[in-house]
Amino acid sequence: MYVTSVDKVREYEVNMKGACGVKVKYLLHKGVGAKNLQLRLFTIGVGGHTPLERHEHEHEVFILRGKALAHGGETEVVVEGGDVIFIRQMRNINSRT
Amino acid sequence: MYVTSVDKVREYEVNMKGACGVKVKYLLHKGVGAKNLQLRLFTIGVGGHTPLERHEHEHEVFILRGKALAHGGETEVVVEGGDVIFIRQMRNINSRT
Repeated sequence: MYVTSVDKVREYEVNMKGACGVKVKYLLHKGVGAKNLQLRLFTIGVGGHTPLERHEHEHEVFILRGKALAHGGETEVVVEGGDVIFIRQMRNINSRT
Repeated sequence: MYVTSVDKVREYEVNMKGACGVKVKYLLHKGVGAKNLQLRLFTIGVGGHTPLERHEHEHEVFILRGKALAHGGETEVVVEGGDVIFIRQMRNINSRT
């Protein structure tokens, strides 16, 4: 059993193209033995946004607090604390078949 | 993209052997298209506890609020809001090899 805390994990600025006012803490990752999952705490400042991304893996987001507009496919949804976003597993987006 | 909220999901009493004062909301599960992950919100009353369990899959717990004693293997750790618990993937516990 591995235990950590949001207070103990270093926070980084997200400098990816398309990100604005975003910070991240890598809570669970390969370095602590997580082979199949990752847990990250993102903090998005007022007016900020993450990049539009596509992943092959399933993706879940739990909103701790605040209010944001979530874009997914053709839809936009206002989300706030206590909301959960789920992105289904995509077929291999690089697949040629 | 699927969006739900802790306020919209029905809460059940957990009646498993070894559970006391535990309620659960199934936020993400196969029924909403999640093939590889599950997200559940557990609420444990004062003095309550979940059963001691073993899983083969990786397991992450994010503590939203409160204070609890987490048991894992030979260790016990006090956890509170903002803490993260990670349980590594076990070898097949039913394996005979």
